[in-house]
Amino acid sequence: MQKQQRVVIENVSPQINGGALSIKRVVGQLVHISADILADGHDLMAASILFKAQKDKKWSEVRMSAGQNDDWFGTIKVEKQGVYEYKIEAWVDYALNWQYGIGRKIADGQRVNSELAEGVLYVKALQKKASTSEKVYLKKLSELFKNEDAYDEAVNEAVSDKLKVIFEKYPEKFLANTSEPLPIYVDRKKALFSTWYEFFPRSAASKEGQHGTFKDCIPLLKRVSDMGFDTLYFPPVHPIGEVNRKGKNNTTTALDGDVGSCWGIGSKNGGHKDIHPELGSLDDFKELVAKAKEQDIEIAMDYALQAAPDHPWVKDHPSWFKWRPDGTVQYAENPPKKYQDILPIYFESEDFKGLWKECLDVLFFWIDCGINIFRVDNPHTKPFYFWNWIMNEVKKKHPDIIFLAEAFTRPKIMQQLAKQGYTQSYTYFSWRDNKHELIGYVEELTKTEQSEYMRPNFWPNTPDINPFHLQGANESKHIQRYVLAATLSSNIGIYGPVFEQMLSDALPGKEEYLNSEKFQIQKHNWEAENWLIKLISGINKARKDHEALQQTNNIKFCHIDNDQLMAFYKWNDEKTSEVFVVISLDHHHAQRGTVQLPIHDLGIGPNDQLKIRDILPDVHYTWNGEWNFVELHPNMPFHIFEIIK
Amino acid sequence: MQKQQRVVIENVSPQINGGALSIKRVVGQLVHISADILADGHDLMAASILFKAQKDKKWSEVRMSAGQNDDWFGTIKVEKQGVYEYKIEAWVDYALNWQYGIGRKIADGQRVNSELAEGVLYVKALQKKASTSEKVYLKKLSELFKNEDAYDEAVNEAVSDKLKVIFEKYPEKFLANTSEPLPIYVDRKKALFSTWYEFFPRSAASKEGQHGTFKDCIPLLKRVSDMGFDTLYFPPVHPIGEVNRKGKNNTTTALDGDVGSCWGIGSKNGGHKDIHPELGSLDDFKELVAKAKEQDIEIAMDYALQAAPDHPWVKDHPSWFKWRPDGTVQYAENPPKKYQDILPIYFESEDFKGLWKECLDVLFFWIDCGINIFRVDNPHTKPFYFWNWIMNEVKKKHPDIIFLAEAFTRPKIMQQLAKQGYTQSYTYFSWRDNKHELIGYVEELTKTEQSEYMRPNFWPNTPDINPFHLQGANESKHIQRYVLAATLSSNIGIYGPVFEQMLSDALPGKEEYLNSEKFQIQKHNWEAENWLIKLISGINKARKDHEALQQTNNIKFCHIDNDQLMAFYKWNDEKTSEVFVVISLDHHHAQRGTVQLPIHDLGIGPNDQLKIRDILPDVHYTWNGEWNFVELHPNMPFHIFEIIK
Repeated sequence: MQKQQRVVIENVSPQINGGALSIKRVVGQLVHISADILADGHDLMAASILFKAQKDKKWSEVRMSAGQNDDWFGTIKVEKQGVYEYKIEAWVDYALNWQYGIGRKIADGQRVNSELAEGVLYVKALQKKASTSEKVYLKKLSELFKNEDAYDEAVNEAVSDKLKVIFEKYPEKFLANTSEPLPIYVDRKKALFSTWYEFFPRSAASKEGQHGTFKDCIPLLKRVSDMGFDTLYFPPVHPIGEVNRKGKNNTTTALDGDVGSCWGIGSKNGGHKDIHPELGSLDDFKELVAKAKEQDIEIAMDYALQAAPDHPWVKDHPSWFKWRPDGTVQYAENPPKKYQDILPIYFESEDFKGLWKECLDVLFFWIDCGINIFRVDNPHTKPFYFWNWIMNEVKKKHPDIIFLAEAFTRPKIMQQLAKQGYTQSYTYFSWRDNKHELIGYVEELTKTEQSEYMRPNFWPNTPDINPFHLQGANESKHIQRYVLAATLSSNIGIYGPVFEQMLSDALPGKEEYLNSEKFQIQKHNWEAENWLIKLISGINKARKDHEALQQTNNIKFCHIDNDQLMAFYKWNDEKTSEVFVVISLDHHHAQRGTVQLPIHDLGIGPNDQLKIRDILPDVHYTWNGEWNFVELHPNMPFHIFEIIK
Repeated sequence: MQKQQRVVIENVSPQINGGALSIKRVVGQLVHISADILADGHDLMAASILFKAQKDKKWSEVRMSAGQNDDWFGTIKVEKQGVYEYKIEAWVDYALNWQYGIGRKIADGQRVNSELAEGVLYVKALQKKASTSEKVYLKKLSELFKNEDAYDEAVNEAVSDKLKVIFEKYPEKFLANTSEPLPIYVDRKKALFSTWYEFFPRSAASKEGQHGTFKDCIPLLKRVSDMGFDTLYFPPVHPIGEVNRKGKNNTTTALDGDVGSCWGIGSKNGGHKDIHPELGSLDDFKELVAKAKEQDIEIAMDYALQAAPDHPWVKDHPSWFKWRPDGTVQYAENPPKKYQDILPIYFESEDFKGLWKECLDVLFFWIDCGINIFRVDNPHTKPFYFWNWIMNEVKKKHPDIIFLAEAFTRPKIMQQLAKQGYTQSYTYFSWRDNKHELIGYVEELTKTEQSEYMRPNFWPNTPDINPFHLQGANESKHIQRYVLAATLSSNIGIYGPVFEQMLSDALPGKEEYLNSEKFQIQKHNWEAENWLIKLISGINKARKDHEALQQTNNIKFCHIDNDQLMAFYKWNDEKTSEVFVVISLDHHHAQRGTVQLPIHDLGIGPNDQLKIRDILPDVHYTWNGEWNFVELHPNMPFHIFEIIK
């Protein structure tokens, strides 16, 4: 192929798998773009980022600027939900090269009549594009460059900044080259900033021993909202299987009255599009969703693709399950373990298209009931390409939908789910406890390619994870874990009633709760007050008030000479919100240290003063210079400082 | 798109720009391939590299093995010249998963009748592919697995290694996924191992003041061959322009008898397809090429796309040059400098296709005259896509052709030329002098992506580069520079007569030779002998005898506790040739140090003995353990040790 262009555009970043998958942003976020841009020789070049929402016809253009090593940089802002595309256009700027060359020759004392004659062509080419006043100027120049009697004036104008500005404004883009478009998926803001609370609706009854209902949940909404949570996630609310139902503490035989695991979905009462009768009716559910919205709470639904042996799918679509030659069905298993209350879906089914369609219909059904957030159970045990397809199908019609991937498995599997389209991802945060681990993990999430596609959601605990460091831990430890999650990550969640009451009895030697709500109803004290709850509410308010805490990637860890203290600086894209956070990891003793402020990022000198406000409690300080002393005590093991400018 | 596959194949390496450009190898070389390969869940997987010469129909297959982090590895060997393709095929191995699962359940004491019944299906599926004896065994198994009376025997066979081997040998590859094919360009071996000598044929006359001819060059071939060089590169041999011809020392006015720069190509005597009359005839040239071949020397021709003002192209194809509106032509320039003996080619020409074709015809013309190697002058001032096209066109017909890029410019420009297809590249070696610089540069060339597409050619000097460190330098320095080039890089060259006589007079303050042969004829002593020449010959012989020195990427620098000493280990792909090199960078004093052997790579223990042979002079030693003492003196500032096993 004979291609006359001179410009090579390479290493365009960010991109995922050559543009096969999308990088992610939310509305109003910036995308910092870079590329290697080269041409032969030493000519001056120019480059632009062209970008648009996929549905738009017109490309917007932002000029790039050159670095030191043929690397170019530019930044765009995405404003609408849905798919964006961007590409890079680059060209040799012949007019600017002419001006640069003639300038060097004039400085060298050479006569440049030939070059001025050439300049007339560049000037004339601009006249079509220029404004009226510019046109007058350009017309004057084209006369001047031909007028030997006005040589000195011509030379002055030829090298003028005025002409340079016009050349830069209306580039000819002769033989320009353009890179392949790359996709950006833009979500609503909540994809990046959300505060989740999880409880089991069946434990919502006010009377001990009663099965909670959706109606019981309604009075609890105010508490959740007052604490500053905006997302209320319920484990599955569908009919629970009766065949092979699990007993308390995951025993294989259910006793009379045992309620079973709500992840064993499906019974004679229906399947994934139905409501467990003991929780109420579909109308009750819709009412709860509506009442929650009134208090700015979205209900997140569990999407768990598996079936109890008595799920209607098993009879209606036997090919969606795996049957052995002897007619027995394949239970969920991790050999030698078997989970006889659950059948996995058989995605190798010949009727996989029928299966996929039904899975999609389930989502559409609940979206129609007012659900916009799905927490997806064990997505890593279903094919990646299935997720890519189903999430794209949903988002095409409903760009507001948020999918949270509940996969705790190998790193590349978790990354792949995010690449394939998950809006948010559970993380290893639950197990990262010391300063070294925490900083290493957050830097991996925010300073590598993962920052472009994986939005972490930090959970100190879940019904499945009662981490060793919380078992028997005191209040200070719980505060630390919450403030770490809430300031390191803009998406967070807690398995609420258990966390805030600091309940941590575990199965011996395991990170699982004793008498887990997964298998039985519990009675919680929904009126409880304590210092931890007060601080959770305060921290959540700080997150709402400070945009710096509503994003995850703009973080810089700062030096502090104490392994029990962590310090970091966060800012929003526009730097109109900046916070500085110090957290103690010692829940027994006071810790002191001297912290180094990121003065370069703060735009202050090494001896300047800095005004800060401790958000909890509301106290103003003035810090002096780069190094400052901090001291933290177990009862209040953190500072969140707002930087005041 | 609904895609039922479960396997994701990502980050396939090596590749250049998503396969748009080729990685490079020579015949017989290995390609180490890796990829991230994932499926949902925890199933056992398998993967193969499929590869073939582009013209072949059948893919060869090599199994990959898994690393620790869903990363897979495999190695192939390329045997033919031309384009190869490789891709990765990966699948979930259902049969092996069945065997793994049944094994865990049996160990757990579970009854596995259902699983055995399932096993019959896996065993039967193999029968078509298996060998006769395997078929007998498989048939036995399918009976056995159904026979409840032989349960114990069935269980033993089900988990047997014998069955596992058969499963692995004949994978079902159900729902396998395959990555996109990626190209490898395979050159002849000389692309990776070549030893260049450069002189100006016009300086070959035996009598002072005479213009040398091709006939004068013939008697010099033996000397070049005896010293161990296999490539003889001549600056341009075409008619030299007479208009604006350069005088001695690059003065702008030629005096009578001045021969001009041979890079100012073209005159009334012809252009790029003609021979400068004072060098002889085309037949003389062909004779020289043939005589050289008899002594295993290939003549490398200079390919310099530019024209003197009196080049025939200027009249015949004025559109291939840039003309100003006033009718003056654009000289080569780097403002404010002008080079009035040279017109650059105008690649923006509307007749670029005619131009490109003529450039290609020039190459075909000289290839027909017996030339297989082109040293391309200033390729970075011509478009990248032009080089890609013209080199592909040539290689399609003539896969033996080698192109050396003479570009000394910004790093990414040099890399891009290599990516676009240059066989070899001049490098910054000429200016890298201390240990830190040398190691850093060689690691960049051999341990980054560059190692896949850029084959360095190390030149201690060229007619254009008389580096400061060689100006006035003693013999030891010259030896060091040669041995560094010759052992660090498998492609090397010298501007011979000047280097071996240690001539280094320079224009004041510049890295250019005084009285440069670029602008005048010089008289060399072609009979000279000295210690440097002896060592050059010895080093060249060592390179011929040891495959470890015939490649560049297999290098590992070793710790040595002296900044004036460098030590490194090199090996061929098969590790049948291994050398250990120590070089002193001090050309005035003796240097001593203790060097750490790479015992892991050598396959010896920390206290084992190692037999080595110093190649120059031929002396055997036995080293003991990991750390060994070395001492080097300025007159013999290196050891090249052959490792004897």
